[in-house]
Amino acid sequence: MKTIIDFIENGTITSVKGFKAGAVNAGIKKKGPKPDLGIVYSETPCTAAGVFTRNRIKAAPVIVCQKRLPSDDIHSIIVNSGSANAVTGRQGMQDALEMTVLTADKLGIKPSSTLVASTGVIGRKLPMDIINKGIDSIELTENGGYDFAKAIMTTDTVSKEVAVSVNSGTFTIGGVAKGSGMIHPDMGTMLCFLTTDAVIDKDFLTDALRKAADVSFNMISVDTDTSTNDTMIIMANGLANNDRIAYKTKLAEVFQQAIDEVCIYLAKAVAADGEGAGKLIEVNVTGAPDMESARNCAKTIVASPLVKTAIHGCDPNWGRIIAAAGRSGAEIVELKTDLSICGIGLLLQGIALNNNYNEVSKAMESEVVVIDLNLNLGRASATAWGCDLTAEYVSINADYTT
Amino acid sequence: MKTIIDFIENGTITSVKGFKAGAVNAGIKKKGPKPDLGIVYSETPCTAAGVFTRNRIKAAPVIVCQKRLPSDDIHSIIVNSGSANAVTGRQGMQDALEMTVLTADKLGIKPSSTLVASTGVIGRKLPMDIINKGIDSIELTENGGYDFAKAIMTTDTVSKEVAVSVNSGTFTIGGVAKGSGMIHPDMGTMLCFLTTDAVIDKDFLTDALRKAADVSFNMISVDTDTSTNDTMIIMANGLANNDRIAYKTKLAEVFQQAIDEVCIYLAKAVAADGEGAGKLIEVNVTGAPDMESARNCAKTIVASPLVKTAIHGCDPNWGRIIAAAGRSGAEIVELKTDLSICGIGLLLQGIALNNNYNEVSKAMESEVVVIDLNLNLGRASATAWGCDLTAEYVSINADYTT
Repeated sequence: MKTIIDFIENGTITSVKGFKAGAVNAGIKKKGPKPDLGIVYSETPCTAAGVFTRNRIKAAPVIVCQKRLPSDDIHSIIVNSGSANAVTGRQGMQDALEMTVLTADKLGIKPSSTLVASTGVIGRKLPMDIINKGIDSIELTENGGYDFAKAIMTTDTVSKEVAVSVNSGTFTIGGVAKGSGMIHPDMGTMLCFLTTDAVIDKDFLTDALRKAADVSFNMISVDTDTSTNDTMIIMANGLANNDRIAYKTKLAEVFQQAIDEVCIYLAKAVAADGEGAGKLIEVNVTGAPDMESARNCAKTIVASPLVKTAIHGCDPNWGRIIAAAGRSGAEIVELKTDLSICGIGLLLQGIALNNNYNEVSKAMESEVVVIDLNLNLGRASATAWGCDLTAEYVSINADYTT
Repeated sequence: MKTIIDFIENGTITSVKGFKAGAVNAGIKKKGPKPDLGIVYSETPCTAAGVFTRNRIKAAPVIVCQKRLPSDDIHSIIVNSGSANAVTGRQGMQDALEMTVLTADKLGIKPSSTLVASTGVIGRKLPMDIINKGIDSIELTENGGYDFAKAIMTTDTVSKEVAVSVNSGTFTIGGVAKGSGMIHPDMGTMLCFLTTDAVIDKDFLTDALRKAADVSFNMISVDTDTSTNDTMIIMANGLANNDRIAYKTKLAEVFQQAIDEVCIYLAKAVAADGEGAGKLIEVNVTGAPDMESARNCAKTIVASPLVKTAIHGCDPNWGRIIAAAGRSGAEIVELKTDLSICGIGLLLQGIALNNNYNEVSKAMESEVVVIDLNLNLGRASATAWGCDLTAEYVSINADYTT
């Protein structure tokens, strides 16, 4: 079956039928006028699945969601920024559970039908009195997705939102994400929430979400630090009335393509808005002997501080790219390797081409810098995204808590 | 047998009996008055061993040394900075070999008795005419170690040199190192050269060097980028006339302790002088279930950009340390973990202590910031060293080649 993906103008998480959202500035974060507490809600119960951080230290809300998912009876997610509720011990677990109880009471649903996520500083207790009042005052509306997307931001400079209509309205997928720091392959986002009106099988949905994470959020890196709170959740309320999507159904591949596209869109937005970032870096590795090599190679290059600083300075210091590839664990044979930056060839079969470095440097002034590395050893390929490393990254992170 | 290690005042690679060195400013680097080409030499043939980068892309001089070591007939090492002679294809290999031939001709020895190392930009060909003239003009003297140490510097701000006398002159070990960028566990220095007058067995020497690397240069990180040129070589000329050191001899453990001490001294100097560094970070992990966990945990913390930036800003954001430990692969149980920074307890059995963050922040203004993490799960421990991440790291690396 053909897949036609139309991006919805100003699409967000509430562009999908039956989903409402809302957010308030509860005052969890001391600074700024932005909302810091939000809810997304579907009156119709949802099939839901999640993918979570592989960090051994998991925030309390992550543990709560892992216990409740997958499920066929999820109605809502409550999210706060300003505090990660991680390394907060038994109190943190009680607070996460209480957030779902307060939200469930407000909405007239069971606490077990509510999921919870947090982002912000690790090790601080949640101000539960403020959160209690905040949940009370959230108003849920059909265009509340925009406020919700803002409520999950920390050092993000823009909100990340998208929605697509698939095969002329067969179903719709919307999503929001936040990123900025502590972003690295192994669930490379802190938070991503997706909604869909598709009728879909729970197990298939879990698999599809994991596969989408693998080609999107697991292929971006801002700073190699994997967070304690990485959470990616999809809710499917079935209001599209499509033929049920499950393994081996006609729509299975269509759904996978659509969710991949949505996640790649959001992951690139997260990479481009990495802390202090000035540029989006895209690394395409081709000709790898196997998929794992291709992925590791692309991820290692995009995460290399020396590559990131060189790109920041528009410096065509391509040796750093080859050195990163060489330490990635991927097989690489110097005299077979081709490399280009921004489409300009620099290395052909391991021999440096006499291209004008000033020309390459000029091309690197673009907002997107594309690196193409062909190992010429096989047929596997992978793409990773990241951002340049700037002095601003340092100043953002040198005094985050104080 | 007891080991008494005395640091020799102003000790360097030529503080060891029978070793001469010298360096010149040949003009390989365009900028600066510093020497960029150096030789270390022993008239007496040396037992020599090496440890090299694990990067799959290896510079030509690394390949040459790997072929020639271990050996009982090494007289000299020729080293240049300004160009790494890496990713330079067949020409690069010819140039590395020619450097050993030119040096051997000058000294009246066999080319195979000469080792070679290079550091600097990857992918540039060596200016062999300049190097030829340079080798000719190098003068070897008994206090040439200081110039030699300067000749291997790239973005280092200070030269790193040391020498120790062991058990009141039983034998001596001297060493120089350079580091600064592309420094990460997996042979964490670019170049380190050691000399000793000990009479020592070749195989034992190789093992001892590898063990010393594991507790020193393999435990430091500046920027997670493993270089193509990492080289660590020791030459032992036997002039101390001690009882031959080999496996199971009385002096075996004494020698290991002394070489460990010398390498840790140099490795810490490399970490403290990491590109843009303002502080030395020392991470002690104790109570780990096994040595691999202890090492990985310490190295992951010391390499974390978020930990490094927080320390730069004297920000006691300890959650980042726990998050890094959690993603290191080491077993960690939140409710067993103790953490302190600069001796001030922050986390006890997973519970945050109510210590004054201003006091911690003030303590972090020190030039050395010590992190103690007790996992309370076993008896293994490890120490890693690194440096803070500063805006200067970014500016140094944003335009290194242009």
